[in-house]
Amino acid sequence: MPTRTSGNFYGIGIGPGDPELLTLKALRILKEVDVIFVPKAGIKEESMALEIVQPIINGKKIVEKVFPMIKDTEKLQEFWLDAARAIKKELSEGRDVAFLTIGDSLTYSTYVYLLQCLRDMIPEEKIHTIPGITSFNAAASLVNLPLAQRDERLAVIPVSDNVEELRPILEGFDTVVLMKVAKRLDKVIELLEEMGLAETSVFASHVGLEDAYVTRNISALKGSGRGYMSVIIVKRPPK
Amino acid sequence: MPTRTSGNFYGIGIGPGDPELLTLKALRILKEVDVIFVPKAGIKEESMALEIVQPIINGKKIVEKVFPMIKDTEKLQEFWLDAARAIKKELSEGRDVAFLTIGDSLTYSTYVYLLQCLRDMIPEEKIHTIPGITSFNAAASLVNLPLAQRDERLAVIPVSDNVEELRPILEGFDTVVLMKVAKRLDKVIELLEEMGLAETSVFASHVGLEDAYVTRNISALKGSGRGYMSVIIVKRPPK
Repeated sequence: MPTRTSGNFYGIGIGPGDPELLTLKALRILKEVDVIFVPKAGIKEESMALEIVQPIINGKKIVEKVFPMIKDTEKLQEFWLDAARAIKKELSEGRDVAFLTIGDSLTYSTYVYLLQCLRDMIPEEKIHTIPGITSFNAAASLVNLPLAQRDERLAVIPVSDNVEELRPILEGFDTVVLMKVAKRLDKVIELLEEMGLAETSVFASHVGLEDAYVTRNISALKGSGRGYMSVIIVKRPPK
Repeated sequence: MPTRTSGNFYGIGIGPGDPELLTLKALRILKEVDVIFVPKAGIKEESMALEIVQPIINGKKIVEKVFPMIKDTEKLQEFWLDAARAIKKELSEGRDVAFLTIGDSLTYSTYVYLLQCLRDMIPEEKIHTIPGITSFNAAASLVNLPLAQRDERLAVIPVSDNVEELRPILEGFDTVVLMKVAKRLDKVIELLEEMGLAETSVFASHVGLEDAYVTRNISALKGSGRGYMSVIIVKRPPK
């Protein structure tokens, strides 16, 4: 009986949305693998990741997996385990599998949960992570805004409901990338204004997508409800 | 008399070294532009950036510019101004110009200096920055190491001679990327050991190049002199 070769798994960061921000490596692997798993938020929703790469993976076997937007990690774990098991089955039948993830695969990506499940199921050497362009790298590029140079310090932090927690970080770092701003946008803007940081900072949302929006006039965004899928790059004013 | 069309300038992040980590956008622009400017550290040295993209830009007009590894910013400014003037000349003659930069164009890149010079010379809308994969995104991928998830905080900081400055940051962040470790490697390792962070952290050097080296056994690197072109990703031990 022939030994079945087990396939390779690739966790691919596809960048923030613009299909041109895929790496050559991501493109090659997407063309080479047998099956592509894509995450989506609900059964009836489209997968944003799939939409981005659709033109280049025409005709491939696609498996859509739902990962609902819930905070209950135990319930979510079941969805990840289910996806990991389905991936393992493909691999054990000798097929190569890719999993798509928006942005960089290891920076605030749900891929990290899948990675943790897969590690318990398949050997580490079969797991290959491919880096991608993050939303904040892309946002900075849109306005030619340096993230850090020389001895400057860069912090990347998700905003919590207690925006006061940001204060010491905004004081101690030259550049601060604020993630997951969402409904806290107004509170964040007020803090930046109070700290004298609103005028040198940049707001970007839906980076890499058709409705991308970038502005240096952060104060004007108060009450706009534009916080979703956004990133704010806070810069210390030049000395 | 016909109006001369002025060309476009592209500052391109080419990733950490592996030519496959270029984005499709970088590749397209490199194929479309008329002239490619590449930085190098000395007159007799090879340009590392040029070496990485050489196979894909065969036959293009290449202009090599020396940016010596000196700390005197005033002297360095002359080199950047000289490059900016040469780029401006090409643009004013209607040619499109690209400038190569390793990693991401706006994250600890010397491109930032050139950008500042160019801004005083040409209209902002002619300047296009293309993001690239950073060395630490690529390093994390090599070992499937999550940089941040959920509400975790990520800091990226260049190491100074006073490694004690790192202590509060290592205490306050879930992941800390240490850049420019160089000759301070031993002192950094000692601090990480003292703080109980050595065993969960990762050291990577020459990421994306043929002699890339990655290890989770940081303590074994003491006295190795391997600090150059390296990055250390410090992770809090799991709770």
